[in-house]
Amino acid sequence: MNYTAEIIAVGTEILLGNISNTDAKDVSEALSELGINVYYHTVVGDNPERVRAAVDIAKERADIIITTGGLGPTYDDLTKQTLAAAFGKEMYFDEAQADKIRSYFASQPGRKMTPNNLQQAWLPIGCTVFENSCGTAPGCAFESDGRHVLMLPGPPRECRAMIKTGVRPYLSKLQEAEIHSHNIRVFGMGESTMEAKLHDMMTELTNPTLAPYAKEGEAMCRLTARAKSKEEAEEMMAPVLEKVREILGDVIYGVDVDSLEQAVFMALKEAGKTVAFAESCTGGLASKRLTDLPGASAVFPGGIVTYSNGAKAELLGIDPALIEEKGAVSAEVALEMARSVRNRLGADIGIGITGVAGPDSDEKGNPVGTVFIGLSAEDREMSREFHMKTDRLRVRIMAANNAFDTLRRYLGGLELPENFI
Amino acid sequence: MNYTAEIIAVGTEILLGNISNTDAKDVSEALSELGINVYYHTVVGDNPERVRAAVDIAKERADIIITTGGLGPTYDDLTKQTLAAAFGKEMYFDEAQADKIRSYFASQPGRKMTPNNLQQAWLPIGCTVFENSCGTAPGCAFESDGRHVLMLPGPPRECRAMIKTGVRPYLSKLQEAEIHSHNIRVFGMGESTMEAKLHDMMTELTNPTLAPYAKEGEAMCRLTARAKSKEEAEEMMAPVLEKVREILGDVIYGVDVDSLEQAVFMALKEAGKTVAFAESCTGGLASKRLTDLPGASAVFPGGIVTYSNGAKAELLGIDPALIEEKGAVSAEVALEMARSVRNRLGADIGIGITGVAGPDSDEKGNPVGTVFIGLSAEDREMSREFHMKTDRLRVRIMAANNAFDTLRRYLGGLELPENFI
Repeated sequence: MNYTAEIIAVGTEILLGNISNTDAKDVSEALSELGINVYYHTVVGDNPERVRAAVDIAKERADIIITTGGLGPTYDDLTKQTLAAAFGKEMYFDEAQADKIRSYFASQPGRKMTPNNLQQAWLPIGCTVFENSCGTAPGCAFESDGRHVLMLPGPPRECRAMIKTGVRPYLSKLQEAEIHSHNIRVFGMGESTMEAKLHDMMTELTNPTLAPYAKEGEAMCRLTARAKSKEEAEEMMAPVLEKVREILGDVIYGVDVDSLEQAVFMALKEAGKTVAFAESCTGGLASKRLTDLPGASAVFPGGIVTYSNGAKAELLGIDPALIEEKGAVSAEVALEMARSVRNRLGADIGIGITGVAGPDSDEKGNPVGTVFIGLSAEDREMSREFHMKTDRLRVRIMAANNAFDTLRRYLGGLELPENFI
Repeated sequence: MNYTAEIIAVGTEILLGNISNTDAKDVSEALSELGINVYYHTVVGDNPERVRAAVDIAKERADIIITTGGLGPTYDDLTKQTLAAAFGKEMYFDEAQADKIRSYFASQPGRKMTPNNLQQAWLPIGCTVFENSCGTAPGCAFESDGRHVLMLPGPPRECRAMIKTGVRPYLSKLQEAEIHSHNIRVFGMGESTMEAKLHDMMTELTNPTLAPYAKEGEAMCRLTARAKSKEEAEEMMAPVLEKVREILGDVIYGVDVDSLEQAVFMALKEAGKTVAFAESCTGGLASKRLTDLPGASAVFPGGIVTYSNGAKAELLGIDPALIEEKGAVSAEVALEMARSVRNRLGADIGIGITGVAGPDSDEKGNPVGTVFIGLSAEDREMSREFHMKTDRLRVRIMAANNAFDTLRRYLGGLELPENFI
């Protein structure tokens, strides 16, 4: 059956503009992967009449209704009662969930359980309970006249976890199939070029499917298979993934990795190597991104942020005459920064990043977006030049992205031209 | 009149989960400030029948309908036609807007205008045109039987700009009042404490109003006045702002500033002073946040990221015996880091940040969330100790926040106890 779904978020804080409706994004992403069409999102406040009105409209236009929010213990948490009433379901008190709530509070010395907290243990009779791995409010799902109603908690962390452990298995079963997928991450090729190269596969394939996803500053596509088992899905995806690799080549920086820095982190660990950054225009962003990852200390002894020319001389020993002659934003200075930070930190690889982030051109007349990235290692020394036509914030992000991509290409023994862009 | 509004976002990419509906957040925030109740958000795909169905529902439950998205030049951009039809309005071709679009393309050597682009110049007869300062698609507003329909572009930057220049003036006029507000930013006091202290003012005041806003890791409240003019609004707000300052005291780090680092940046510029960071657990985050601000080079020569103990010795000259005795995460090492980075960069103030971000305790048994911040300046040297009960990501953010707050308090001559938390 071809299901259509509607997502109803219950929460006045969204209507006040205090937060975005990220739960709807997370649920939509999962449904889209499961091949279920989402035709509407609705957001409604913590008001029983308006929630009921929204549900009555959704009943007319969706087979699957998924609510987020309003499962908590306070007086304005009324999603379960309202939905149960809308579908003529009675409620029961779930002793197992009540015990879970009681023991949660018993384990938190500072927190006292009020009778309200146990309200969360009331559930529609006959429902499937979704355990909440990050909080106390359980979610649930029930069927009524061929329609399916799923209720999820509002806090994004809890909602995301329950999509994985509750929603996906429930809906996969409904569709009599398991859905598995791989994210193919690309850097160094625009989204439109990637789409053009994969166009035939994207339009012709039906199972598995291949679809593009837009990500800030990079391209990505997702390969998704429906099958009876994970093994079968993987078998179906393997030849497609191989063909995508053949077509795109080494702009693929990873499959199922979270970010460029994570790909670099794993490659460094595997090679048993360390890297040190000397940053000018990125001002610490590259170091910050690598150290966002737990365990970064194994590959990153440290870095130096030389925002002023004086700091480049004092902290990195760069000859002021070189800066005078070539400019602080130059291939030569980028390479000297890489050499120096590598030596000073005793790292295997040094990376130097210097550029004009803006808002203004530099004293040598280099326009905003001019960036040089230097790399120094035992077997290779080089500088790369980039010209980015974008604003300060994005120049910094793209400069860090290109530093990570330079590292990735060096570590992987991939083509690494000096003037790449 | 007490208006109620509904926001309809048109865009299949939201239903696919590719992006969040941030436009609805931005519009809601503005309406909430204008005192207009938003009862529903709806998201619908680029499909004329479903957009029409959503509009027909909204007509029954809202006085003001605001759409976002679907104003562009491609075949699936159909918001204007659909809304005009739903309200029985004819369209006209706006020559002034067409000229703007033509001259935009003439100024972009690489881009060619297709006839589609001029489709954006078709507008409902009798509408108020909202100029698009960041793109080519104009927005518009019209009235029909006492209902108001406003149409805004989908790209968040264009939408945000038009909220300011188009939506706010249009709706203020409708309400026969101007709305002005101030954001009061607080650090070092929890949101619930702030609310408790301001409770009476928040509940009793009607114009101006005072309302709390949750922000990541800090508290904030917004003071909003409706008046005939900006001057009148400011006059109404001044005594309230003064009273809030009296009640909250120096936890207010700024009014209408964007962030703690911006407050510090302005204070450094005013004092003509510079700061340098030595970062361990934050791994470059403090440097990155300060250099996010254009013009940071005036106050920030640079920083050193010493993620390993070896780097603390090599780059900052910290005695390995001190690290051995006290531990890398200690008040003594934080102060030495501050002293050393100040000297090495010739800065007026040095800040050292060392702590356990996690996932594990350090070798001395300090639990995750233990952070020391050292400050070294000509007239003051100190270390502060913090214990944060949260995860890796938040420990890093809170450590940087507290480093900026330490700087702010030092620069402002405010109370700065050694063991603050």
